[in-house]
Amino acid sequence: MSIKPLDNRVVVQYVKKDEGEEKTKGGIVLPDTAKKDEKPQQAEIVAVGKNIAPEDGEAEIAVGDTVIFDKYAGTKVEIDSEEYIILSIDDVLAVIE
Amino acid sequence: MSIKPLDNRVVVQYVKKDEGEEKTKGGIVLPDTAKKDEKPQQAEIVAVGKNIAPEDGEAEIAVGDTVIFDKYAGTKVEIDSEEYIILSIDDVLAVIE
Amino acid sequence: MSIKPLDNRVVVQYVKKDEGEEKTKGGIVLPDTAKKDEKPQQAEIVAVGKNIAPEDGEAEIAVGDTVIFDKYAGTKVEIDSEEYIILSIDDVLAVIE
Amino acid sequence: MSIKPLDNRVVVQYVKKDEGEEKTKGGIVLPDTAKKDEKPQQAEIVAVGKNIAPEDGEAEIAVGDTVIFDKYAGTKVEIDSEEYIILSIDDVLAVIE
Amino acid sequence: MSIKPLDNRVVVQYVKKDEGEEKTKGGIVLPDTAKKDEKPQQAEIVAVGKNIAPEDGEAEIAVGDTVIFDKYAGTKVEIDSEEYIILSIDDVLAVIE
Amino acid sequence: MSIKPLDNRVVVQYVKKDEGEEKTKGGIVLPDTAKKDEKPQQAEIVAVGKNIAPEDGEAEIAVGDTVIFDKYAGTKVEIDSEEYIILSIDDVLAVIE
Amino acid sequence: MSIKPLDNRVVVQYVKKDEGEEKTKGGIVLPDTAKKDEKPQQAEIVAVGKNIAPEDGEAEIAVGDTVIFDKYAGTKVEIDSEEYIILSIDDVLAVIE
Repeated sequence: MSIKPLDNRVVVQYVKKDEGEEKTKGGIVLPDTAKKDEKPQQAEIVAVGKNIAPEDGEAEIAVGDTVIFDKYAGTKVEIDSEEYIILSIDDVLAVIE
Repeated sequence: MSIKPLDNRVVVQYVKKDEGEEKTKGGIVLPDTAKKDEKPQQAEIVAVGKNIAPEDGEAEIAVGDTVIFDKYAGTKVEIDSEEYIILSIDDVLAVIE
Repeated sequence: MSIKPLDNRVVVQYVKKDEGEEKTKGGIVLPDTAKKDEKPQQAEIVAVGKNIAPEDGEAEIAVGDTVIFDKYAGTKVEIDSEEYIILSIDDVLAVIE
Repeated sequence: MSIKPLDNRVVVQYVKKDEGEEKTKGGIVLPDTAKKDEKPQQAEIVAVGKNIAPEDGEAEIAVGDTVIFDKYAGTKVEIDSEEYIILSIDDVLAVIE
Repeated sequence: MSIKPLDNRVVVQYVKKDEGEEKTKGGIVLPDTAKKDEKPQQAEIVAVGKNIAPEDGEAEIAVGDTVIFDKYAGTKVEIDSEEYIILSIDDVLAVIE
Repeated sequence: MSIKPLDNRVVVQYVKKDEGEEKTKGGIVLPDTAKKDEKPQQAEIVAVGKNIAPEDGEAEIAVGDTVIFDKYAGTKVEIDSEEYIILSIDDVLAVIE
Repeated sequence: MSIKPLDNRVVVQYVKKDEGEEKTKGGIVLPDTAKKDEKPQQAEIVAVGKNIAPEDGEAEIAVGDTVIFDKYAGTKVEIDSEEYIILSIDDVLAVIE
C-alpha cells in the first residue's frame, strides 16, 4: 500500500533517528524557537506528484531528498502506522545536500 | 437516482467498514489529532465532474479510487439515506494505492 | 413576468413538496447539520444566464435540472409572491439525476 | 445635467411607485428578510458605462431595464434632488422582464 | 509648482463654492448619509496620469471634468495651501455632465 | 556605500529642510490629519530599481524627483546614519514638479 | 552539507561582526524602531534558487551580496549550528553596495 500525491504535491516523512548515529555528519538542528513548537521542519521525500517538474528541464527535487518546509504547511496522514505529511511544492523551501 | 458533480468536482463517500476485516491489509489509520476531530480524511470516489482530466493525457483519479482530502474541505449532502461529500479536485491531496 | 439572470448566473426555486409524494423515488434528504440550519441545499433551475455553457460543447446544467448548491451562496428575491435564489454557476456543486 | 458612469458601471434609480398602480402587473415584492433592511434590491437602469457590452454581440442590459442587484452593492449619490445608485455590472444579478 | 499623478491615477480638487452661485444649475447635493460623514464625493479633475486612456480610442475623463468617487478612496495632500486628493481611476465612478 | 533597490522599487529620503529657506517656493505642506501622524508623505528619490520604466518609452520618475507616497507604505532602513525608505513604485502616487 | 533553496528563493546569513572592525566602512545601522525588535534586516546571500534571474539578462543579486529584506519575511533554519533565513526573492528589497 502506498500514497500517491496529486498534481504538484509531495509526500514527506520524518527521518527516523538512529540512536547510535552522530549528528556531525549531516545532522540538522533546529533553532530554539522551532524546538519549542516541537515541529521539525525537515523530512525526506517519499513520493512526488506528476507535475513536480520545471517547464525547462531538470526537476529541483526527487524522492530521497531531504527538504525544509514551512512549519505550518501540509496535511498529516497516517497509513499502516506510518505518519506522512502531504505538502504542496510551494511549501518546500530548500533541499539539504 | 445519482449525483453528478459539475466542473472540476468529485463526489466521495466514506467506505463502510466491514467488522470482520483486518486492518493490516490497506487499513488506513488517522493520527491522534485527526481522531479527536473524528473527521476521517479518506473516502472513495463515486463520481467525477467532466473537467477531471489533465491537459496532457491520463487522469490522476477515477471512480473507485480511495483518496485523502483536506479535513475542512467539501460540502456534505445526503441522498436516499446515503451521505456524500462533494469536493473540488483541488482539495484532493493524494490517492491510496 | 420573468427573471433573466446575467452572465454566468442561474435562478433556482425550491421544489414544492407534494404531500402525498413518497420519498423513496428521488427524495433528497439533507444530513442533520444541514437540517438545523433549515436551509435546503437543492432546488430546481428555472432560468440560466447566457454564459452558462462550457467552451467545448454540451452544457452541464439546464432549466429543469435539480441541483445542489452551497448553503450560504446566492441572493434571494421574491417576484409575484414566488421566491427565487440567484446563484453563480460556481456555487452549483452537482446535478441530481 | 446628467451622470455618466465610467467603465463597466451602470447608474440605477428606484422606480417611483404610482399610488394608484396595482402590484399584480409586474409588481416585485421582496422577501421578509430584505424588507427588514428596507433596502429594495431592484431599480431601473438610467445610464450605462461605455464598456457595458459582451465581447460577442448583444448587450445583456440596457437603459430602461429593471434589474436586481446585490443589497450591499453600489454607491449612492444625489444629483438635482434625484437619488441614484452607481453599480458595477458585476453586482447586477438579473433583469426582470 | 504642480502635482503630476503616476500611472492610472488622477488628482482632483473640491470645487470652491461661489457664495452667490445658485444650486439649481448643476448643483450637486449629496444624500443624508453622505452628509453625516461630511465627505463630499465629487470634485474636479486637475491632473491625470499618463495611462488614463482606454485601449481603443477616446478617454472617458479629462482635466476639468467633475467626477464622483468612492468616499473612502484616495490620498489627501496639501501643496501650497491647496488641498488635493490623488485617486486611482478605478475609484472614479462617474462623470457629471 | 550605496543602496540599490531591486525590481520595481525606489529608495527615497526625506528632504533636509534648510532653516533659512522659505516655504513659498515649492514648499509642500501636509493637511492636518497627516500632521498628527507626523509622517511626511513626500521625499526625494535617491535610487531606482532596474525595472522602473514603462513598457512604451519614457520613465515617469527619476532620481532627484520629489514624490508623494502612501503614508503606511515602504520599509525604513538606516545606512551610515542616513535614513531611507524603500518603496514599491506602486506606492508612489505622484511627482511634484 | 549545504542548503539549496528552491525556485525563486534565496538563503541569507547574518554577517558575523568582527569585534575589532570599525563601523564607518560599510557598517549598517538600523533605526530605533528596528532595534527594539532586535531583528536585523540585512544579511549576506549564501545560496540562490535556480529561478533567480531576470528574463532579460543580468541577475540583480548573487551569492556574497549584502541585502536588505522585510523584517517579518522568511523562515529561519539551523544547519550544523549555523543559522540561516530562507527568503523569497520578493522579500529582498535592496542590495547594499
